[in-house]
Amino acid sequence: MNQERIQPTSLRDKVITAQEAAQFFKNGMTVGSSGFTRAGDSKAVLKALAARKHTDELKITLITGASLGHDVDGQLAENNILAKRMPFQTDSILRKYINSGEVLFIDQHLGETAELINNKHLPEIDIAVIEVAMIKADGSVIPTTSIGNSATFIEKAKAIILEINLSIPTSIEGIHDVFYPGEYPNRKIIPITQANTIIGQNSIPLDISKVIGIVFTNIADSPATIAEPDQKTIAIASYLLDFLRDEIKAGRLTNSLLPLQAGIGKVANAIFEGFVDSEFHDLTMYSEVLQDSTFDLIDAGKLTFASASSITVSSACYEKIFMNFDKYKDKILLRPQNISNAAEVIRRLGIIAINTAIECDIYGNVNSTHVYGTKMMNGIGGSGDFARNAYLCIFVTQAASKGNNISHIVPMVSHVDHTEHDVDIIVTDYGLADLRGLAPRERAIKIINNCSHPDYRPLLLDYYQRACQEGGHTPHLLNEALEWQARLIETGSMKVDEFALV
Amino acid sequence: MNQERIQPTSLRDKVITAQEAAQFFKNGMTVGSSGFTRAGDSKAVLKALAARKHTDELKITLITGASLGHDVDGQLAENNILAKRMPFQTDSILRKYINSGEVLFIDQHLGETAELINNKHLPEIDIAVIEVAMIKADGSVIPTTSIGNSATFIEKAKAIILEINLSIPTSIEGIHDVFYPGEYPNRKIIPITQANTIIGQNSIPLDISKVIGIVFTNIADSPATIAEPDQKTIAIASYLLDFLRDEIKAGRLTNSLLPLQAGIGKVANAIFEGFVDSEFHDLTMYSEVLQDSTFDLIDAGKLTFASASSITVSSACYEKIFMNFDKYKDKILLRPQNISNAAEVIRRLGIIAINTAIECDIYGNVNSTHVYGTKMMNGIGGSGDFARNAYLCIFVTQAASKGNNISHIVPMVSHVDHTEHDVDIIVTDYGLADLRGLAPRERAIKIINNCSHPDYRPLLLDYYQRACQEGGHTPHLLNEALEWQARLIETGSMKVDEFALV
Repeated sequence: MNQERIQPTSLRDKVITAQEAAQFFKNGMTVGSSGFTRAGDSKAVLKALAARKHTDELKITLITGASLGHDVDGQLAENNILAKRMPFQTDSILRKYINSGEVLFIDQHLGETAELINNKHLPEIDIAVIEVAMIKADGSVIPTTSIGNSATFIEKAKAIILEINLSIPTSIEGIHDVFYPGEYPNRKIIPITQANTIIGQNSIPLDISKVIGIVFTNIADSPATIAEPDQKTIAIASYLLDFLRDEIKAGRLTNSLLPLQAGIGKVANAIFEGFVDSEFHDLTMYSEVLQDSTFDLIDAGKLTFASASSITVSSACYEKIFMNFDKYKDKILLRPQNISNAAEVIRRLGIIAINTAIECDIYGNVNSTHVYGTKMMNGIGGSGDFARNAYLCIFVTQAASKGNNISHIVPMVSHVDHTEHDVDIIVTDYGLADLRGLAPRERAIKIINNCSHPDYRPLLLDYYQRACQEGGHTPHLLNEALEWQARLIETGSMKVDEFALV
Repeated sequence: MNQERIQPTSLRDKVITAQEAAQFFKNGMTVGSSGFTRAGDSKAVLKALAARKHTDELKITLITGASLGHDVDGQLAENNILAKRMPFQTDSILRKYINSGEVLFIDQHLGETAELINNKHLPEIDIAVIEVAMIKADGSVIPTTSIGNSATFIEKAKAIILEINLSIPTSIEGIHDVFYPGEYPNRKIIPITQANTIIGQNSIPLDISKVIGIVFTNIADSPATIAEPDQKTIAIASYLLDFLRDEIKAGRLTNSLLPLQAGIGKVANAIFEGFVDSEFHDLTMYSEVLQDSTFDLIDAGKLTFASASSITVSSACYEKIFMNFDKYKDKILLRPQNISNAAEVIRRLGIIAINTAIECDIYGNVNSTHVYGTKMMNGIGGSGDFARNAYLCIFVTQAASKGNNISHIVPMVSHVDHTEHDVDIIVTDYGLADLRGLAPRERAIKIINNCSHPDYRPLLLDYYQRACQEGGHTPHLLNEALEWQARLIETGSMKVDEFALV
């Protein structure tokens, strides 16, 4: 049974159990695995590896597309199997191991991991573990709900384990576009000129002599949990939609905008919901992830095409897509993440990039990875790939949180992921700061007045004014610049204890 | 006389003096001017504007390619004519005005200014002031020693003043390659696949009805001052050349390397000198600026082609080039800076990018613009365009300076221009840290041990170890992180006064 999913007959005797596959992994190996924002990940082999009993040291470097589902990252960390992990994660257990220094994490631009592998700037991939829908007669494989770095892993790995996921219909064939830019010094142009340009083939070529095992699964992706928009996200979305309307009035954009990219989360959902009943039309996406809101916009007739590297949706949306696949099939395309996130294409298409900040400073620098400047949250993901090449680079955050004990607008961010040179727009639930064409001193006034929470506004202005007395292109008081975050660690609040000042 | 430099006869009555041209400028105007690293700048009109007596307010926004020569920036600042300046400057007088807040400066990626003008994210250009070698019969103009943003200024400006520089031979025709990527949503591919690919035309098309004045000059570019390599720069160059040799041994590069980019300065000269008597051959450059060392390498038969946006050389080299122009003409190409610095091309060609840092931190973040975190030095220039898209992103700095009172390796940089996500290699006169594939904690050990000055090494290790006790993916002590720079401001040294500790 299911042998029709392995069309090259010579491969049919490679079928093994996940537990057998888990025995292939040796201490010190580098493993490349499919999976991007919990879609199309290994659901059996890595899990069996995480459960594998070992008395000798068994530590691997694990490289994926992006985050994995099914708690696999946490289980691997708990069983002491991860030496190094890149380029992204969202697992609450793994996060603890990273922040204690027990697992070494490399926080990489998602568009660059494949580059680093191609350039041999990372160790060679010993084993690739790739979820696929089927193996075609020519030996090539059809990916499932993501491509991520799978094409590069398959090309470069010494050995390959395939997980054939029977829960994915083989009719998924056709939504993937696999393209290799080639190697230096003869790299090719990536000839995408529209979100829907097809430039490659719909399966990943594979040297079948490298396949050391095939494992069958029948497990769905970990579903996305969709948080309903709340007052803050609705406010942020509303400021942003007003801004886009003003750009149209100013003649800089049309009602079709330019291709959209949005990070995962509530704000993106709120913005996309705002498009549903609106004057916007013929929208397109050139992004990393297709979320529930993408398909809602297609349903509403507002979105004509969406390109990304994965589909990460709720269970209900997942079902909707596969029950009505013909409706969506010609409106979506999944690409390798070095193509979905390629600097070249992002700049050429003119993306409107909307990503979430942990904190922004008064000069427009953005921290999107580190809590208190030291602890890793998830990683930079693709935000940098998009932010620095976008037509409009937009960051959203709440003005304050945790009973307003944390201000997300601070004098100086405690870690910089996106520099002042790259950030165009900052939006909070208090307002929007358009930083285009502004010098640092102009930005400070605008960010403080438009975006900060009123509880912190006088403190920010006071800091800025005292810093200006010391002078400088970007006025700062170095002894105080990170005091807010230090106070938060110490007292649980960025607020100044008034009694302490007496 | 010289009328043959104005081939469209209808334009010949537009010839005026620089003082007459200076009268065109009105308060509030935005001016776009040629000039990139002091090459091909306006030598008469902006100087006359800087000298223009005015009782009413006369403040302009001045956008250039990059830095101007002939002290024009300082003179404009001193005569209170600059309201806003972008995207780069290197003038010691203007710098004071920027740091006091009297002139607003926008520190922009050099590759992005033309994008921002095209996208109407900056104010419309009222007047363009462009140095040219001649106006051809079809109305198009031949630039001189740089292109910078001239093609965009000429296309977008409401009015144009041309400065015909008679000191530039008209035989310069043919070294320019002018290409427009077009406008959203129909941007074109930039089809450069080698440093020497010609994709455009050799002059800048011009709507002659926009020309409001033509001024003749006969003044050479401000010459580059070439500092001889010293012990530190020779050490840095030596570590870097050894590294490149190791990369060749490891099979990642060949003796022809990949196209080189180098910022202006002593280190670049020392490295390029190192190539002269070496096993490297058939080198190419895809950079911003052609410097003396570029032509030395061509003379040595080591460099086959060099692409950039300007030629900035010493007087002696300038003379050498124009006396032997036939020898160099087919080996060099000048491009608009949005092409020389295009993310798309830099990634595609696989540039080895070598730029100078003001300070680096133990995790690999780089400050290349701000002294003490607040005072602007020159600007980010093209370093970001190259750093984030390069095949290898290399930053060089001295380990310590000013009698070793300043350590250029610090716990935390006081301003971030290049993030830890992007920096591959840091080199000082004490050694080289290869950060590829390393997590922050691994980087810290390597940077401290390989790159820091021995006077500061124990202090850096002490900081790092105490930070690790607090935990975190990127361990920091926020109360101390910027203390080194604060101490420098206060005491003139980053060193701890031992008596103060008693």
